[in-house]
Amino acid sequence: MIEVKVPATSANMGPGFDCLGVAVDMYNRFLVEEIEEGLIFEGCDDKFKNEDNLIYISMKKCFEKIGYKPTGLRIKIESDVPVSRGLGSSAACIVGGVVGANELAGRVLNKKEILELISELEGHPDNVLPAFLGGVVVSAYENKQLIYSKVNVKEGIKFCALIPEFTLSTEKARGVLPKTIDYKDGVFNLGRVALMVSALNNGEFHLIKDACKDKLHQDYRAGLIENFYSIQKECERLNCLGVFLSGAGPTIMVMIREEDNDFSKEIQKFLDTLQSKWLAKELKMDTVGTVVKTIDSVTK
Amino acid sequence: MIEVKVPATSANMGPGFDCLGVAVDMYNRFLVEEIEEGLIFEGCDDKFKNEDNLIYISMKKCFEKIGYKPTGLRIKIESDVPVSRGLGSSAACIVGGVVGANELAGRVLNKKEILELISELEGHPDNVLPAFLGGVVVSAYENKQLIYSKVNVKEGIKFCALIPEFTLSTEKARGVLPKTIDYKDGVFNLGRVALMVSALNNGEFHLIKDACKDKLHQDYRAGLIENFYSIQKECERLNCLGVFLSGAGPTIMVMIREEDNDFSKEIQKFLDTLQSKWLAKELKMDTVGTVVKTIDSVTK
Repeated sequence: MIEVKVPATSANMGPGFDCLGVAVDMYNRFLVEEIEEGLIFEGCDDKFKNEDNLIYISMKKCFEKIGYKPTGLRIKIESDVPVSRGLGSSAACIVGGVVGANELAGRVLNKKEILELISELEGHPDNVLPAFLGGVVVSAYENKQLIYSKVNVKEGIKFCALIPEFTLSTEKARGVLPKTIDYKDGVFNLGRVALMVSALNNGEFHLIKDACKDKLHQDYRAGLIENFYSIQKECERLNCLGVFLSGAGPTIMVMIREEDNDFSKEIQKFLDTLQSKWLAKELKMDTVGTVVKTIDSVTK
Repeated sequence: MIEVKVPATSANMGPGFDCLGVAVDMYNRFLVEEIEEGLIFEGCDDKFKNEDNLIYISMKKCFEKIGYKPTGLRIKIESDVPVSRGLGSSAACIVGGVVGANELAGRVLNKKEILELISELEGHPDNVLPAFLGGVVVSAYENKQLIYSKVNVKEGIKFCALIPEFTLSTEKARGVLPKTIDYKDGVFNLGRVALMVSALNNGEFHLIKDACKDKLHQDYRAGLIENFYSIQKECERLNCLGVFLSGAGPTIMVMIREEDNDFSKEIQKFLDTLQSKWLAKELKMDTVGTVVKTIDSVTK
């Protein structure tokens, strides 16, 4: 049996729309096993126990690419990453499925091939790359070729994910984005995203607040997320380093100093005064990415 | 007498329109001295020997800020940085003037105040900051406050500036830029500029080619620069790391490997086949920025 542990991810870090994502220490575990026949799911709702399951689809694509035909599959899911919250749960399923299948087939695909396949299945690389590689990753497509760089982040920061009970579909969040933008808004984000990468690299954490500012998606999506601006304002009042919308939302990601032991408690108090239920969850950056273990079951 | 040595700079590094610039080892030297009365210029054309001289204007602004009134000034200019070529000659004059004046007045302004004044005088910080600080600098304005970060560049690259005999005014080059852009073009540059900063930091020089790609100004300006695309193509054929328009042009800046001893000679051969005259000048990154020396004249 193969265990694949994949971290949650927060894409669109500040001004890094569609290109900058970070892995955090909240995980989905996928236990996959080739069995004599059939397809067995464990650990998920009955409505996901079918061939439309994203983990299964990802495994199937990987097996097809390799040319491997498993006799049957058992897929067990232990998920801590909440779905449709902008924390990369789909990316985690895709990475888990592909990596799990590749292991079952005898580790045929190399790192580059895995990166290409997971990006292709997700449609864009900004969640799947940090999910697989860990850390903060810059990614883009150049003539359909995947290009990426892992940012060398100085120690000293951690995160606090503010996760609401309500969900937001990526499709809906994509729908509010414009087709054209002001030239100056494009230039605004350029400076900020370059600043973010350099500031993370140098440990210039006092720059993070400005380096989180965005004019490409956050303001368009804020209207879809109750209390976005009041929460942002309260985070700033509590001396966070920076605030950004995680992925397409609705989770709000906060960057805080590693030694800040008060922020999460204080922001939870504020969140508790709001109409919807929100959870403040402190997270470290995951620097390792996806981890694979082979488990020899005693009952096998 | 004060000598201020200021490096040339190349702004708009690839996709880093208005936010990413680099200092290179080509310099303007400004020798400034307070004299009993009058205003004497040496080392420049007669048409620049008046109160509209940019160095003089910059000195005057600095003196005004400090509240210092020199009795008279002698300004001697030794300039290697060609004008109106996109190599930051105006920025060098501004930095030279401000720093020289500040020294004459008794070093009153601190680093932050100098950075703010030179950025204000230039109107934007992307040339003056690397000219003053050296290296590669990310910069932007946030609510009229200057924000910046010096990129930690791994050793291993140098530059080759392809400088034409013809000039291009920044005003004309600004005039061809659009008011709005496609959303996807804005996103394109975001990924590339983040990649540039991370790749420079990690020494991932194989990524520089893609990290130089731009959709925000280069294609709009290429039409103003004879043979831009054919030169770019030849640079790539000669295995450069990346090519970008320096500032608003017309200089084309090429990034090459430090150990590449052939590129400059080979590209010069190609340039010599073109109708206009071009010079290929190999340059190292200047990491020091502006340097001040006090010179005690024996004839004083």
